[in-house]
Amino acid sequence: MSLMADMNPAEIRQLIRRKKWVKPTSGLASGFVQANLAILPKELAFEFLLFCQRNPKPCPLIDVTEPGSFIPTLSAPNADIRTDLPKYRVYRNGVLTEERTDIFDFWNNEMVAFLLGCSFTFEEKLLDNGVPVRHMEEDCNAPMYITNIPCQKAGRFEGPTVVSMRPMPPKDAIRAVQITSRFPSVHGAPIHLGDPEQIGIRDINQPDFGDSVTIKEGEIPVFWACGVTPQAVAMHVKPDMMITHAPGHMFLTDLTNESLSIM
Amino acid sequence: MSLMADMNPAEIRQLIRRKKWVKPTSGLASGFVQANLAILPKELAFEFLLFCQRNPKPCPLIDVTEPGSFIPTLSAPNADIRTDLPKYRVYRNGVLTEERTDIFDFWNNEMVAFLLGCSFTFEEKLLDNGVPVRHMEEDCNAPMYITNIPCQKAGRFEGPTVVSMRPMPPKDAIRAVQITSRFPSVHGAPIHLGDPEQIGIRDINQPDFGDSVTIKEGEIPVFWACGVTPQAVAMHVKPDMMITHAPGHMFLTDLTNESLSIM
Repeated sequence: MSLMADMNPAEIRQLIRRKKWVKPTSGLASGFVQANLAILPKELAFEFLLFCQRNPKPCPLIDVTEPGSFIPTLSAPNADIRTDLPKYRVYRNGVLTEERTDIFDFWNNEMVAFLLGCSFTFEEKLLDNGVPVRHMEEDCNAPMYITNIPCQKAGRFEGPTVVSMRPMPPKDAIRAVQITSRFPSVHGAPIHLGDPEQIGIRDINQPDFGDSVTIKEGEIPVFWACGVTPQAVAMHVKPDMMITHAPGHMFLTDLTNESLSIM
Repeated sequence: MSLMADMNPAEIRQLIRRKKWVKPTSGLASGFVQANLAILPKELAFEFLLFCQRNPKPCPLIDVTEPGSFIPTLSAPNADIRTDLPKYRVYRNGVLTEERTDIFDFWNNEMVAFLLGCSFTFEEKLLDNGVPVRHMEEDCNAPMYITNIPCQKAGRFEGPTVVSMRPMPPKDAIRAVQITSRFPSVHGAPIHLGDPEQIGIRDINQPDFGDSVTIKEGEIPVFWACGVTPQAVAMHVKPDMMITHAPGHMFLTDLTNESLSIM
């Protein structure tokens, strides 16, 4: 794994393309941005792009392809979005119908691929700054919750904001606000901290997605807008076809994490 | 004018709607965000939105209306985009055909209004921080230049980045980088400072738009991406119809300048 951490994104995408890596991408190509994928038909692309523009915290756009193009020109100009993720999920009318290791057979000229920032980038920066991340310590997924915070509607796209949670002492929470504010392209600053009920979370130990983590004495939960939000919202619209990455099986871009920082 | 500076944006929009104010908006509703306007047919809206997403420094989106809606829901929910700017410009096939004080007659269900951040916001913040702005001191428009920095193409939209320039001593230039970095929604940090030739500007005293300003001994020119860029790029596509604000006659939103700051 440490060897893979040192390989560059293009080398790893080649392995993935040749089906030599069909596992989650966490820890690969250390220092480079990994992205969530959502592919939608052109007919829905304007509304979804508008939804992302109106909701930049849960839906931070890293790159959007031209309709029909499978090349993410800005973030990885030598990549092929149809083959370069280790695992995809195909949804028809909002229902998961299959998982695939490439989507050659599904691609057509009407498709638009959206790449969205993910929390891997800011978690690396938290660790670099000495702020531990509990679900990494406990080797599980971050706990995620459906909140009562509505997204800004755009066309047919609407729904609640989903958040991920990381518990930490107040001193670390303050530092985490500073660190993640520098990275608006990967969810940016937290959207809430402290009392979960204020954002409609009844039981912090019962996440809607991911795993429950330990909250120690003196720690407060800190909540970030989560990339599950746009997928949940898009599913609700029940597009004829929608393709996403499988959880944890992200797209590796050529962008460095640091290139996304502002200041 | 000082009375107008203290009025809130909604009150001023009412005056504008009733044709009681048909002048530039600089200095009005101090502390509130003013925006550039570009109205395009729905058929071009996805490509233009994608262009803005790919070029956030010249094209920082503040708000985008649903197709056919004249209400900028996020930035001024009680406003009417057809009447609430003091002066509009109508372009047909890329040619300016008329100036109007409202666009009732031109509006249809296929139109999408884009509101883009403008430099008024960051100039207020420069002044608040003791960084003087030369074109304000000299009571003229900021000098603007067409550079050799290409925008990221999106569909039919492409062209060079236009910049505005403010000369200042290096100490102020450093402070200006810090201040404007906090405001990515209004062009953010400068894109160049120092030697104009490096970005394709031959004669700093001959701006392509706006007015030439004095550059004093020991000062360097500092260049920000400019909201003229998207208009120039859109004009190049020659849409059947495109409507913009007349220069200096901006849209007053209900958003405070400070609400756009990150950190």
